[in-house]
Amino acid sequence: MRTIKVGLIGLGTVGGGVVEIFKNHREDFKRRAGVDIVLAAAADRNTVRFEQLGLDPAICTTDAFAVATDPNLDIVIELIGGTGVAHDVVIAALEAGNVVVTANKALMASAGQEVLGLAEAKGLDIRFEASVGGGIPIIEPLKHSLISNEISSVMGIVNGTTNYMLTRMTENGLDYDTALKEAQAKGFAEADPTADVDGFDAAAKIAILASIAFNSRVTIDQVYTEGIRSLAPSDIDYAKEIGYTVKLLAIARRTDEGIDIRVHPTMIPSGHPLASVSGVFNAIYVVGDFVGETMFFGEGAGAGAAASAVMGDVIEAARALDAGNTVIGCTCVDNLRIRPIDELQDRYYVRMVVHDRPGVLAATATAFAKHGVSVESLIQRSPGEADSAELVYVTHQASEASIREAFEEIRALDSVSEIAALIRVEDI
Amino acid sequence: MRTIKVGLIGLGTVGGGVVEIFKNHREDFKRRAGVDIVLAAAADRNTVRFEQLGLDPAICTTDAFAVATDPNLDIVIELIGGTGVAHDVVIAALEAGNVVVTANKALMASAGQEVLGLAEAKGLDIRFEASVGGGIPIIEPLKHSLISNEISSVMGIVNGTTNYMLTRMTENGLDYDTALKEAQAKGFAEADPTADVDGFDAAAKIAILASIAFNSRVTIDQVYTEGIRSLAPSDIDYAKEIGYTVKLLAIARRTDEGIDIRVHPTMIPSGHPLASVSGVFNAIYVVGDFVGETMFFGEGAGAGAAASAVMGDVIEAARALDAGNTVIGCTCVDNLRIRPIDELQDRYYVRMVVHDRPGVLAATATAFAKHGVSVESLIQRSPGEADSAELVYVTHQASEASIREAFEEIRALDSVSEIAALIRVEDI
Repeated sequence: MRTIKVGLIGLGTVGGGVVEIFKNHREDFKRRAGVDIVLAAAADRNTVRFEQLGLDPAICTTDAFAVATDPNLDIVIELIGGTGVAHDVVIAALEAGNVVVTANKALMASAGQEVLGLAEAKGLDIRFEASVGGGIPIIEPLKHSLISNEISSVMGIVNGTTNYMLTRMTENGLDYDTALKEAQAKGFAEADPTADVDGFDAAAKIAILASIAFNSRVTIDQVYTEGIRSLAPSDIDYAKEIGYTVKLLAIARRTDEGIDIRVHPTMIPSGHPLASVSGVFNAIYVVGDFVGETMFFGEGAGAGAAASAVMGDVIEAARALDAGNTVIGCTCVDNLRIRPIDELQDRYYVRMVVHDRPGVLAATATAFAKHGVSVESLIQRSPGEADSAELVYVTHQASEASIREAFEEIRALDSVSEIAALIRVEDI
Repeated sequence: MRTIKVGLIGLGTVGGGVVEIFKNHREDFKRRAGVDIVLAAAADRNTVRFEQLGLDPAICTTDAFAVATDPNLDIVIELIGGTGVAHDVVIAALEAGNVVVTANKALMASAGQEVLGLAEAKGLDIRFEASVGGGIPIIEPLKHSLISNEISSVMGIVNGTTNYMLTRMTENGLDYDTALKEAQAKGFAEADPTADVDGFDAAAKIAILASIAFNSRVTIDQVYTEGIRSLAPSDIDYAKEIGYTVKLLAIARRTDEGIDIRVHPTMIPSGHPLASVSGVFNAIYVVGDFVGETMFFGEGAGAGAAASAVMGDVIEAARALDAGNTVIGCTCVDNLRIRPIDELQDRYYVRMVVHDRPGVLAATATAFAKHGVSVESLIQRSPGEADSAELVYVTHQASEASIREAFEEIRALDSVSEIAALIRVEDI
């Protein structure tokens, strides 16, 4: 049994989890997985972490590139995150002939082609299971167990922060600001919550999932993205009333006109398995032509869960190195079109605040009708303020373009104060 | 690209699904998976299937062993099922140097050691993802993505027939016989439903899952098994009343005293993700020391789902053959003790029919107390019959042995007509 030497770059929370797995399970890995893996180098700018994690000072450095390019290593784990230094570190590691394991969704969703291409050219393995869904096995099952299917859709709750906030808003009636403050206090949200609440984190993840599921490269900038900042408690309540639950859903669908890919608050039927995924949990729902519906559920964040995925990748890579096995490279061989959001055919929930006067209902309904948008249901409410009412429309299937055209007309109406909410309704 | 030749033995429903995947996706596999796989031989006793499935007569035979031992093949798919001919066919295929893919849970749960040992000795791959959970990827994730964890428990709803019946009993108030007849009429249950309703199917599956999760061989005969035949609608109703849902749960837990493994009707909290798995769907819930909770959900039966898993295995095996990769063998290296059911510590739901007279409550409660069984809650009801009442106890944690001792004493009481139900309560 050959000893596989691993370098770890980035000793944050996930890095700490990785160190712990090495400590707890190295002997188990020898016996159960048939590989001897040793943590042979570690790098972080914050030298305090070396002692905190009980690392041998002899293997520690502040120089990430020294670890990345270390010729004595076999595998380099990149846990810096982001697309700056992390990008250069990953490229340097591959150039130096080291296998790479990373949890970096931003990197894989933006520079996946460069990184995977270089790995393939070098005949090296690169693995990134931890980049989506924390500890949930999803990238490997898509690449392997489900490969005999043509995947028609992948959709999921892939951001724990916003799912925690939405759960609190739905189950306990919190508003957005209170939910965010609570998530921050509990350590579920960053001081700057932009990446989570504006949907960018979820966008990176669905770009990665779609690339694998559809064998066609999708990058983060191709994902239409809306976050949850403008979501009001009343929209969540109206959704409940009509049997739906609001989730920040990352959606990727294969259609005859290309890949439909987007992240936005979405009303899904409350009976759907995804609707009951609550708190910081994540779940990814996959439909294939033979397998039918499947769902993968688990902890989407946290040191242990992400470290589990990272170390799963490390062990797989180590086994392949030990056996001298050939790496099976990237299979993003198709080149499918990305459908612009205007082409989307969906159902829409629209809440508008109007002046409570005769004709407003007719005027708004006429605007929809004129653009071919057929109405499925309508609720009119007077929330209390004088002269003010709310109209809540749910449309039948309509094109996003026609909805936008109707909106222009509706916004021009004197009797309409604002279109306060637009939420897409998915009857999955 | 080398052409990998596959032989298919058994052209039932799943076999039909496999033929369909070959037809629909062979070209996709070349492009997306980088392997060219061809169906080069097929065997079934029922020759009508050859034409039904549109197979070239030149590749068809009624001789399973001719296919199993065909030196021109690379991979043999065994879909006969059972432990008779199927066993001999699998052994013959391996002896002849063919890689084996099988969906045979009975074989893997009883003769796994023989079959896996022979494959390892021959340096051949053997894969059996379809043996558990239909199309749900679970064996591969346990072997790979989750391998960095010490798995503490695997439990699941792994029999679609009984889950369909229990769903109808729970949601629509059907009794056992009506639910069974309906399941049979819909094709979800066999004419002889024994394997499903008595829990043997689930027992084979949990034996396979436990062997992989705990790296220790468990066979079907080591699984304590109770089916759902005696489950009464009133037990399901009482469960609802106290916030539980009754499922036929297959449970495997790693404990300091060995592996706790069993299949029986189980009350689980209605808020648990497993409780909302309804109809013929399956789900497997896995807890690991780093990954935390994960769940894998999907279609547990049906031609398409099982064929998806079979063909996922075929493609993986074909890729490995094509690349000349070394096979990583069985890792059941630990030799953990199986805990007898008497050692189980659990909570218990007990329903007894008693004569409605003074002292019966005290007498039954005393019997429990005498054997150290502490009562958590008690419901007393008079269902209508004169002189008859029902006592429904839910105990605190108690040992199975002490419950049985208390039962002996209770059965001897004149005032007790029968102990009508014993259901274990798992606070997962």
